[in-house]
Amino acid sequence: MNPAVAALRASVIRELNARKKPTSIDLGLGEPTLSPNLAHFERATRWVAEHGCRYTPANAGDSELRSAIAAHYGYPALSAARNVCITTGSQEALYVVLKTLFDPAEDELLLVDPAFSAYEKIAQVEGLTVRRVAMPEQTGFAFDADRILQALTPRTRAILLCSPCNPTGRAISRADARTIARALGELPGAPVYVIHDEIYREIAYADDIGSFGEYYPYTIAINSLSKSNALTGLRVGWFAAPDEAMGELGKTHALMTSCASTFGQRVACEIFAGNELGAHREWYAGQRAAALAAARDAGLEVVLPDGAFYLCVNVNAGNDVEFAWELLEKHDVVAVPAGIFGPGLSGWLRTSFVGKAEDLRLGYERIAALAGGGVGTI
Amino acid sequence: MNPAVAALRASVIRELNARKKPTSIDLGLGEPTLSPNLAHFERATRWVAEHGCRYTPANAGDSELRSAIAAHYGYPALSAARNVCITTGSQEALYVVLKTLFDPAEDELLLVDPAFSAYEKIAQVEGLTVRRVAMPEQTGFAFDADRILQALTPRTRAILLCSPCNPTGRAISRADARTIARALGELPGAPVYVIHDEIYREIAYADDIGSFGEYYPYTIAINSLSKSNALTGLRVGWFAAPDEAMGELGKTHALMTSCASTFGQRVACEIFAGNELGAHREWYAGQRAAALAAARDAGLEVVLPDGAFYLCVNVNAGNDVEFAWELLEKHDVVAVPAGIFGPGLSGWLRTSFVGKAEDLRLGYERIAALAGGGVGTI
Repeated sequence: MNPAVAALRASVIRELNARKKPTSIDLGLGEPTLSPNLAHFERATRWVAEHGCRYTPANAGDSELRSAIAAHYGYPALSAARNVCITTGSQEALYVVLKTLFDPAEDELLLVDPAFSAYEKIAQVEGLTVRRVAMPEQTGFAFDADRILQALTPRTRAILLCSPCNPTGRAISRADARTIARALGELPGAPVYVIHDEIYREIAYADDIGSFGEYYPYTIAINSLSKSNALTGLRVGWFAAPDEAMGELGKTHALMTSCASTFGQRVACEIFAGNELGAHREWYAGQRAAALAAARDAGLEVVLPDGAFYLCVNVNAGNDVEFAWELLEKHDVVAVPAGIFGPGLSGWLRTSFVGKAEDLRLGYERIAALAGGGVGTI
Repeated sequence: MNPAVAALRASVIRELNARKKPTSIDLGLGEPTLSPNLAHFERATRWVAEHGCRYTPANAGDSELRSAIAAHYGYPALSAARNVCITTGSQEALYVVLKTLFDPAEDELLLVDPAFSAYEKIAQVEGLTVRRVAMPEQTGFAFDADRILQALTPRTRAILLCSPCNPTGRAISRADARTIARALGELPGAPVYVIHDEIYREIAYADDIGSFGEYYPYTIAINSLSKSNALTGLRVGWFAAPDEAMGELGKTHALMTSCASTFGQRVACEIFAGNELGAHREWYAGQRAAALAAARDAGLEVVLPDGAFYLCVNVNAGNDVEFAWELLEKHDVVAVPAGIFGPGLSGWLRTSFVGKAEDLRLGYERIAALAGGGVGTI
């Protein structure tokens, strides 16, 4: 067996989910609970009646969809259909990009922390050297351009960040994105890429949210319809990259999965044609307000989310994994120990606010009760 | 960039396809031209209306589908749902298996030649040592158990073969599969796996076709609905493996793509429930007869296919790649230079018989004319 795969630890999230009971209050979910627009599935089925369900002509995907995505973002260096490759969810996009962009013998990945735990696992399996730069608790885990830039080394080939962030919900400001873009643009030598995981881009509550693609040509933007349109099971994601990188990235994609689902891509075409990417935003804003109110009433310290559907709550736990297990086993609440997203969040939990308001209220009460007296307010 | 990706050559098949004209006779296709059963898409859409389109509860896929696949094959060591993992087509299954099963520092892959060209490319990107064992032209590229067994070394971790074979259409006999299974079973030390790519299993013309899963517990069977049910664009494939291997294989799969399309898996459930895997077999048998008649009338030497939808024809070309380019540019016929599947097929072309009978006839006539007088008969 491949020792790099064997060395991967089991996922704590998966283990917690496996022990969930029918009665459990689930604040651990990483996916929407809304229903997708069924009309798109019906139209895609009619398309199949006419065209069959064959490979897309290019491995990189349906040209109509690639054009629609490029136009939707309008990032200057990524604005043509040829700059977009459709993948099996954003997970494949991430995998392809991390596998392709680096020479494992030379290059380093700079991971902005806290961050989705899959990033480091992919890097680990691919033998990449990872340097982490942590956004500190004192500033509520806000993205900090200077701190990120100070962590660069001559071997940094790319910076990877998730904004709006899983797990904190924090988003990088336009000014900070511009500052980073400007500094990277002035570096000598081969370009340093910014891999911007924007999967929560459409679920945004703040006004000042920066997209690297707007400011920096060596951006690789990763996204999908999973979160914005309640379509995690459709498995349609993508990366958008400048011309220089598309050839190599496309080879890896073709070898790993040939192409993404043709049916799924037709559903995606309908969503872009109907301009429905923000369709669920208002609902999430309501959920966020309910979650914040419930957490505040329970007396929990939280990170105010700029986007996404997570609320990190401070339980001051010495060991957040043990806390999460006790919370599940004794109080029947699922929440994710947030230290798995970076050591700065040890002692915190990631909760998601995709469920019912009464579950949020009860869940935060039980979390606060277990955390005991050592808990501040916002 | 990753030097292993950079070293991958461009695909000749893709380059030929890119130069295809609307008038071209296309004998280069690697996918069905039939239409899929639309009723399944309609039922899957109704399922989404009820359940949404979320991740499958397990990364390995829909438990109903996994059970149906395990039961359909009934391979003794792979007969439980837990032995099946649903992937984004057989391409992802192949990638996951080749990436996971080997310690690149120690193990060798034994590739049975001729073989689908992606196998070697995946091995190349993953840094695997590949040994090739060629089935010789003199016996029509028939699988030969003794020859395969003689090529084993103490470092062989797995044998990979495609039967029925892309490109030759030859299939391994039950006796040869049993001979290999018995010999491998008697080897000391860690088991040597057989990775059996059975993607053309349901498109079979011969009676005596062996499936390793029936005889050998350390089989990893790979398949999909792409070829059997004209669903290349659905991207539903799978691997079935013994318990010992599933844990590690599942980790790689989850990291690469999270899970396969939930919608696609519901379509697949309908196909298994309706026992429709052999639905297109008769049509292919008719196509095969038409192709053989046309090639014989044109005076071409061919390999009689036991399965799949390819006919390898001998054009005695010194350089089959140049021949294929001349065939396309001067005679407007697309066919694949078969040397890319292994050096034993240099001088041959792979043609596919998924098109119209008149195209087959005209295509083989033009191939024979370009090949000139040095061509024998079957």
